[in-house]
Amino acid sequence: MGKRWSCKATGENLLAQAKEKVTALNERGVEPHLAVVLVGEDPASKVYVSNKIRTCESLGIKSTFHKLEADTDTDSLLSVVDELNGDNAVHGILVQLPLPKQVDESRIIAAINPDKDVDGFHPVNVGRLSLGEPGLFPCTPMGVIALLRDSGHGLSGKHAVVIGRSNIVGKPMAQLLLKENCTVSIIHSRTQNPADLCRQADIVVAAVGRPGLVDAAWLKPGALVVDVGINEITDSEQARKLIPSESKKMKSFREKGRVLYGDVNYFSCLETAELVTPVPGGIGRLTIAHLMVNCVVAAELQNPST
Amino acid sequence: MGKRWSCKATGENLLAQAKEKVTALNERGVEPHLAVVLVGEDPASKVYVSNKIRTCESLGIKSTFHKLEADTDTDSLLSVVDELNGDNAVHGILVQLPLPKQVDESRIIAAINPDKDVDGFHPVNVGRLSLGEPGLFPCTPMGVIALLRDSGHGLSGKHAVVIGRSNIVGKPMAQLLLKENCTVSIIHSRTQNPADLCRQADIVVAAVGRPGLVDAAWLKPGALVVDVGINEITDSEQARKLIPSESKKMKSFREKGRVLYGDVNYFSCLETAELVTPVPGGIGRLTIAHLMVNCVVAAELQNPST
Repeated sequence: MGKRWSCKATGENLLAQAKEKVTALNERGVEPHLAVVLVGEDPASKVYVSNKIRTCESLGIKSTFHKLEADTDTDSLLSVVDELNGDNAVHGILVQLPLPKQVDESRIIAAINPDKDVDGFHPVNVGRLSLGEPGLFPCTPMGVIALLRDSGHGLSGKHAVVIGRSNIVGKPMAQLLLKENCTVSIIHSRTQNPADLCRQADIVVAAVGRPGLVDAAWLKPGALVVDVGINEITDSEQARKLIPSESKKMKSFREKGRVLYGDVNYFSCLETAELVTPVPGGIGRLTIAHLMVNCVVAAELQNPST
Repeated sequence: MGKRWSCKATGENLLAQAKEKVTALNERGVEPHLAVVLVGEDPASKVYVSNKIRTCESLGIKSTFHKLEADTDTDSLLSVVDELNGDNAVHGILVQLPLPKQVDESRIIAAINPDKDVDGFHPVNVGRLSLGEPGLFPCTPMGVIALLRDSGHGLSGKHAVVIGRSNIVGKPMAQLLLKENCTVSIIHSRTQNPADLCRQADIVVAAVGRPGLVDAAWLKPGALVVDVGINEITDSEQARKLIPSESKKMKSFREKGRVLYGDVNYFSCLETAELVTPVPGGIGRLTIAHLMVNCVVAAELQNPST
C-alpha cells in the first residue's frame, strides 16, 4: 500500500533557495523584478497570475502587472515585450498563456529575451536544455525533478516513463530525466499498449489531460507516480468510477457537482505504487515555486557577480 | 532471416529532391552557396569536407572552402563566421567538427545565423525541432527518417528505441521519431538491462560508438535496425568475435589489420531482424545527401518566393 506523496517540503525548499538568492542579490543592490503580462479576462489565468504575484511579494521579488485588453493584437503585444526586454530593471518576463486566438503565440515567445524567459519556453532555452547547456527551463518539469531528487530514491539508471508529449511538460520532462541519467520512454495517444510499457517504469510522470488514465494495472509495484494532470470532472458516472464513494473527494463532488482530478487514478494507484502525488495539492505548488527560482536565476544571469 | 538494408535509393531520392530545388532556385536567379570551414589538418575531417564539396558540385550548389590554421583561436573563427553570416550570397555555413581544443565549440555554433546552420546544431534549431517548428535539423537523423519512410513500414505507433543520447544523433533522432508518432525509448550507458527494453522495439537506431553492441539477443523478430555507429576495429580477438571467418569483411581485416564496424553486430542481427543497415556503405550516404537538402532549404529560407 503506497502513500500520498506530499510536495510541501520540496516546495518550501525551492522557495527557501529563491529567498536566499534574493537576499544575496539585494546585498549587491539588485532588486529582482518579474513583469507579468496578462491579455484578456480568462478567469483561470487571472487566478494563476495573482498567485504568482503574491508569491513574488512574499519573497521580496518585485513584480509589475501589465494587463492588456482581450482584443490586443500580435504587434501591440510584441511592442510591450520589446519594451520589457529593453528595461534593464526588469529581469523576468512572463506572458501568461494561453493567449487569445488572434495573437501569434510562438512569435511572442520567440520575441522574449531568452535570459528573461522565466517560463523556459523560448526556442533558445528549449535548445539549451536539450544540449545540456545552462539556461532557464520550464517550471513544472523542473519542480518534478526537485521532488524526485528530494525523495532520496536516486534517478540514475531508473526507467522513467513520461505520458504525454506537450512542449510545456512532456518533452522538457523527458529531457530533464535523461539529463539525470534515467532511461526514458515517452508514450502518447498513438502508443500501442501504453500500460505494457508503463508497467516497466520505476518512475511515471503523467501529463496528458485524461482524468484517471493511469491506474494500478499500469504500474509496477513500488513505482513512484507523479501526476501533472489537472482535469475537471463534472460527469457523475465518471466520478463514480474514479472516486471511492466514502471519500472526502466524493463528498465534495456531490456538493459542488464538479471536482479536480489528475491523470492518475489516485485511489487505484495507491494500492501498487510506493508514492503518488495528489491532485489538487500536489505538483502545482512546485510549478510556482520553481518560477520564483527562475526569476532570481534570471536576475543573476543579468547581473553576474563580477 | 533478414536482409541488408540498402540506403542507396533513399540517398538518390534526397539528392534528386535537392537537385530539383537547385533548379527552381536558379530559375529565380538564386545560386545556392555553401561555405565550408575547416580548422586544422585532421585527416578524417579532410575526407568528410572534400566529400561534401564534391557532392555540392555534382548538384550545382556553389561551395567555398575556408581553410584555417590548426592554432586558430575562438575569436578568429568567430570573425570568419560573422563575415559569412553577413554575406548575403552565402546561404549555408558548415564548420567541420570536431574543432581543435583551444576553440570554444558551443560559442562557434551559437554564432552561426540559425537560418544558415545547415548542420542543425544551433540551439535555436535544436529548440525548433523539439517544439515542432520549421527549421534546419541534423542531417544523420533526418536521413534515418527518410530511410524509414521509404521502407513503407509506417512509423506511427511503432516503438522506436534509440541507443545513445548524443546531441548530434541520439537526442534529435528521438525528437524526430516522436514527431513521426513513434513511441520512443532512449537507452544509454547508465541503462539497466538495455537488451530487455531494446527487445520490445519495432525500430532500433544504434548511435553509441560501441562496436557490435547490439546483437540478435537484443532484437524482436522482424525489427528494423539502423546502425549509425562507425568504429574502427584493430583488435583481432574482437574481430574474430564479431566477423564470420569466411566473410569478405574478415578477409579485408586480415589484409589491412583494421576494419570499420558499426554499433550493430550485423551478422548476428541478420538472423532476427527484418532489415539491417550495413557499415560502411549504409547511413553515411544519407547524412551527406541530407546536408545537400539542408543547403537548398537554407537558400530558400533566405530567398522566400514571395
